[in-house]
Amino acid sequence: MRDVKSYSPPFEVGKPLQGGAVGRVVESRSPGLAAGDLVQHGYGWREHAVLDASEARKIEEIPGLPLSVYLGVLGMPGLTAYAGLLDVAAFKEGEAVFVSGAAGAVGSLVGQIARLRGASRVVGSAGSDEKVAYLTGKLGFDAAFNYKKGPVHEQLAKAAPDGIDVYFDNVGGEHLEAAIGALRRYGRVALCGSISAYNATAPVPGPRNLGRAVGERLTLRGFIVGDHAERMPDMIAEVGAGLREGRITFEETVVDGLENAPAAFIDMLRGANVGKMIVRLAP
Amino acid sequence: MRDVKSYSPPFEVGKPLQGGAVGRVVESRSPGLAAGDLVQHGYGWREHAVLDASEARKIEEIPGLPLSVYLGVLGMPGLTAYAGLLDVAAFKEGEAVFVSGAAGAVGSLVGQIARLRGASRVVGSAGSDEKVAYLTGKLGFDAAFNYKKGPVHEQLAKAAPDGIDVYFDNVGGEHLEAAIGALRRYGRVALCGSISAYNATAPVPGPRNLGRAVGERLTLRGFIVGDHAERMPDMIAEVGAGLREGRITFEETVVDGLENAPAAFIDMLRGANVGKMIVRLAP
Repeated sequence: MRDVKSYSPPFEVGKPLQGGAVGRVVESRSPGLAAGDLVQHGYGWREHAVLDASEARKIEEIPGLPLSVYLGVLGMPGLTAYAGLLDVAAFKEGEAVFVSGAAGAVGSLVGQIARLRGASRVVGSAGSDEKVAYLTGKLGFDAAFNYKKGPVHEQLAKAAPDGIDVYFDNVGGEHLEAAIGALRRYGRVALCGSISAYNATAPVPGPRNLGRAVGERLTLRGFIVGDHAERMPDMIAEVGAGLREGRITFEETVVDGLENAPAAFIDMLRGANVGKMIVRLAP
Repeated sequence: MRDVKSYSPPFEVGKPLQGGAVGRVVESRSPGLAAGDLVQHGYGWREHAVLDASEARKIEEIPGLPLSVYLGVLGMPGLTAYAGLLDVAAFKEGEAVFVSGAAGAVGSLVGQIARLRGASRVVGSAGSDEKVAYLTGKLGFDAAFNYKKGPVHEQLAKAAPDGIDVYFDNVGGEHLEAAIGALRRYGRVALCGSISAYNATAPVPGPRNLGRAVGERLTLRGFIVGDHAERMPDMIAEVGAGLREGRITFEETVVDGLENAPAAFIDMLRGANVGKMIVRLAP
């Protein structure tokens, strides 16, 4: 059997890693930015970055919220959740939504946006009982389960006995197969990530029930948040309002010091974080 | 491992089989239809049918073409090819198309419509060298291969060295995985059937490379022709013109006698036919 490469890592060995960052301008030769300004940019994994002003977006502190909110709910993860749920999966009011990696930065927002937009049911899966309690207790998910505690398709059938219309996939593998089995006619899947494949030492088997897609008219669509930048203002307006009014909540897992970033990254991939994993360089 | 039911057969045991049919009205109580009229309807697998006039569509003989054309290129297979390629897979001029089951009633039309609409490359797979010769020789496919003669992904890589934009899937299984591996960014798959699963004695493994869908923004969409009935007039206009002008060609495999219909059906599933499999009840 040939080698199946099921994903490409989002970096090249030998080149600096990219990553979302929030920083304060130290020096500027651009008329639009002055020393002291707060900006969001893509040059993470470093303490200082030199970049073109066009690559930075000026941001304002929001009273009561940490600046890191621009890396999470109001940043790329927020846009991923927003565009993935509403545009890629075309979620509509009254539909049932299932999201995996639900306690993560993206997943927790997918569920909350769905709830605020009138989902008939919001179901999430996560990798610990603590996360499951967070989903149903704090985030208002209708049901959640710990995928390590039993077959996903069985737990999903209990959590969403009438099936689902939308699946937001952060993990692939067994979750994707279970979701395909639970999708109702004209159901949609937003394929956002395949953590199960990233962590796997052998190729993860594909969903054996993809044949259901024909009779049930299912759509599976992969996406990358970068294609949806035009939705950033809509997302910031809607999610920002939810944050201010307390209808959207979030958590962060904060690790101090750039030297701890690699460990934090690995912890994120194995699910040690609740909400966005943040590396803090300065208090 | 649980039982994975990857498809539902399009019939219920104990109920009469449905199937596309062309017939002549013997007796009518509807003002719109008279004895002697030719009609197309869905009550196949029988010599006589009693049906409501609303379930029959009056048709006219086309000079030079057999009436069975309404069961193939100008019937449900024609609509399946047309709507699947243009609406479900959103094919656009200049794109490269791959279709499996390419010598069948649907597949042969997918390739020809793509060619007439300016595909950059049309590639098909089939199950015999004779069919492959028919595709490149008579139907104008740019390349074709016999999937029984080697791994599909290797043969596809040779037939479409620059990759594909659209895959029209009639078979699932190994073909689908190979196509996912060959799809270019923003590529689309129209999932039309899974003959590999119908014939299988064990569940067919799912595509192990579905993770590519994220980074390459791929879309896989299942469909059923019945959802696309509104495109019938467009299809008949375009394919009908192609037939009259000799730019679209087709073949049929004709079996005589209702008593031979079950064998013809099984032969179709194992690929004995070229073009639409027709059971002729009267000369």
